[in-house]
Formats: sequence, structure tokens, C-alpha cells
Amino acid sequence: MADATRDIENLIELMAKLPGLGPRSARRAVLHMIKKRGLLMTPLADAMHIVAATARECLNCGNIGTSDVCDICTSEKRATGELCVVEDVADLWAMERGASFAGRYHVLGGTLSALDSMGPDELRIPKLVDRVKTEGITEVILALNATVDGQTTAHYIAEQLEGLGVSVTSLAQGVPIGGELDYLDDGTITAALRARKSF
Amino acid sequence: MADATRDIENLIELMAKLPGLGPRSARRAVLHMIKKRGLLMTPLADAMHIVAATARECLNCGNIGTSDVCDICTSEKRATGELCVVEDVADLWAMERGASFAGRYHVLGGTLSALDSMGPDELRIPKLVDRVKTEGITEVILALNATVDGQTTAHYIAEQLEGLGVSVTSLAQGVPIGGELDYLDDGTITAALRARKSF
Ligand SMILES: [Zn+2]
Ligand SMILES: [Zn+2]
Repeated sequence: MADATRDIENLIELMAKLPGLGPRSARRAVLHMIKKRGLLMTPLADAMHIVAATARECLNCGNIGTSDVCDICTSEKRATGELCVVEDVADLWAMERGASFAGRYHVLGGTLSALDSMGPDELRIPKLVDRVKTEGITEVILALNATVDGQTTAHYIAEQLEGLGVSVTSLAQGVPIGGELDYLDDGTITAALRARKSF
Repeated sequence: MADATRDIENLIELMAKLPGLGPRSARRAVLHMIKKRGLLMTPLADAMHIVAATARECLNCGNIGTSDVCDICTSEKRATGELCVVEDVADLWAMERGASFAGRYHVLGGTLSALDSMGPDELRIPKLVDRVKTEGITEVILALNATVDGQTTAHYIAEQLEGLGVSVTSLAQGVPIGGELDYLDDGTITAALRARKSF
């Protein structure tokens, strides 16, 4: 079974690199896909090829789209003057599922962290300051995770925005201490957004 | 972001159909893949296409290979007269990782269960009886999960093999009550195989 094993082992090894999957769950997933070749494995492979070929990071905000500048950044409707800063695209998706925010986003791609040696440049913070100056932003909402790194990053950003005449707020109610945004239900995010307070 | 969202949502929905992944872990996995397009998503899609195109069930034993009859069934080295009956290909893989079994396998593809309406025909049990008669089998090792359905199936198979002059054994030591084979470490499987007892 040399060749089949090699191809299948290769697939299992690649699957095991996905977050949340270990070797055992990767094996289970691969067996499940082999059983559902036509209905699942081939459509999944096709969907991956399409997304791999078309998805790209928005040069303006870091969101994932199919063009150099994403649809939220190009939509005039989203030019409300509000700019929501999130750590990750998953958090942007969580905010959009809440459907209570009409403005634009700025995706940092992480948090300031001495351990990971992530600095302001890696986090698009200079770009954020630039956008605040040029996009008619009146309010920056810091929707960062309630973790130590998230809050350190929020304070750093607030400092950088001082003197630019922009109101800096943060999500308040509903985000539990140590909690991560992407785990919250849509209602909690909506409540936290409505009750946002001055930073 | 209409199109990007539709393609990405489609990919997330397909990923969420894999066992062990829910909507949230599917979203995380897709974001991770988008970040690692070249290193992970494209190779993964390619590996899926290869396996989808080449993998097939062995007509003799139910193992997964690339030809009508798998390499274990065609290898003369594996014609030891021992036939190990497992529920699933994952269990066959677990046995092979243990590397202590030199014979051939028979993969049932499940267990007898009134609830799922799985009958002997669905489980290749007639084929098993046929193999015992024609492949020079001297011992059938029932390596089924220590669950109620697994043990019901073991008893049913033992009945079907009565009078065929074949010794029927089952994995004994080391398989915990209610435990599933695929969860055990290699050493436990080896010990259980060595201490196998008459059924
Ligand atoms: Zn954008
Ligand atoms: Zn076979």
C-alpha cells in the first residue's frame, strides 16, 4: 500500500497543521473525506484552490477580499467616520455577524508583544494613524481582546492618536476579562458596542 | 466584499462538515490557510485532489489503497493465516502503527447496530466467511472496539465462523471497557494483541 499510504499520509500531515486539528483528528477527517470524495473532498479542494487564487489582504485595512482594496474600504456607505480597530480578520467577521457596526475597520494582524517581537510597524499602526488623518475619521473604536497584550496595544494606539482630534473609545460592556472577541455571541458584541466608553 | 465572502463562506461551510470541526474552528482554519496559501492551502488542495482521484476501497478487505485489491491483500508476506477483523480503516492504521501484526485485515466498516440499521451484508460479514474458507485462514482475531455494539458484532461473527475449523480470538489485555481502539497508544495495542485469548 506504499503509494496510497504516502499520498494519504501527506494529506494527513497537511491537515494536522490546521489550528485545532491534531494527528488523530486529521486521520479521522481524511477518512471521512475519502468516504465522501465526490460530495466533500473534491468540492473542498476546489474551494481551496479558488480562495488560494483570489483571496488577498486589503492594502488599506488588512481585511481579506479579492482586490487590492476591500469592498468595505471602497463602499461610501461605510464612510461613517467610525473606524473599528480589531486584532484579526476573525474579529472583523465576528463584528460583521453582529451587524451593528456601519463604519470601517482596521485589522492589526496581532497585538504588540515583546515575546513575539511584534512591533507597531508589523501591526499597521503607522497606517492606522495615516488613515485617521486622511479618511475623515471622527471616532476610533478599539475592539481588541480583553487580554494583557490586547489592552497594552489599545493603550499604545490611544497614545499615538492623541492630539489628532479624534475620539478614541473601546468596547465596554459584555467583553469578559481575559475573553476573546471571536468567542462571543452576536448579541454580546452588539451590547458591548452600544455601551462603548471613552478610552 | 460579496464575491470573496461567498467563496470564503463556501469554504468555511465545507470545512465545518469535517468531523471535529465546528463553524468557529472552520473559520480559524480557513483564516490560517489564507495566511499560508502557498505553504498550506494549495498543497492541501492538491493532496486532496490526488487522494480523491486515486483512493479506493479494497474489494477484498475494505482497506483503502489505490487498486482494486490493496497491497496487504496482495502481499504474500501477509498470508500468515491470521486475519484481523476491525471496524474501521482508522483501526487498521492503529494496528499497523503498533507494527506487531503480520497478517491480513478485514474492515467491517462499522458494527451491527439496530439503530443505524447496519446488517451483516453492509459489514462485509458474508465476504469475511468467504475469505476464511478460501484464504487458508487459521485464526480470526476480532479487534473490535470494547463497546456494546462492538462486542455484539464480535459474538455474531464468532457464531458465523463456528464449524469452519478456524480459531477465533479477540484482543484481550489493555483495551479498556468502553474504549475505542484508535485512541490507544501503540504499546497498549501490542500488549493486547500478544495477550489475545480464545473467544
Ligand atoms: Zn479594506
Ligand atoms: Zn485488502
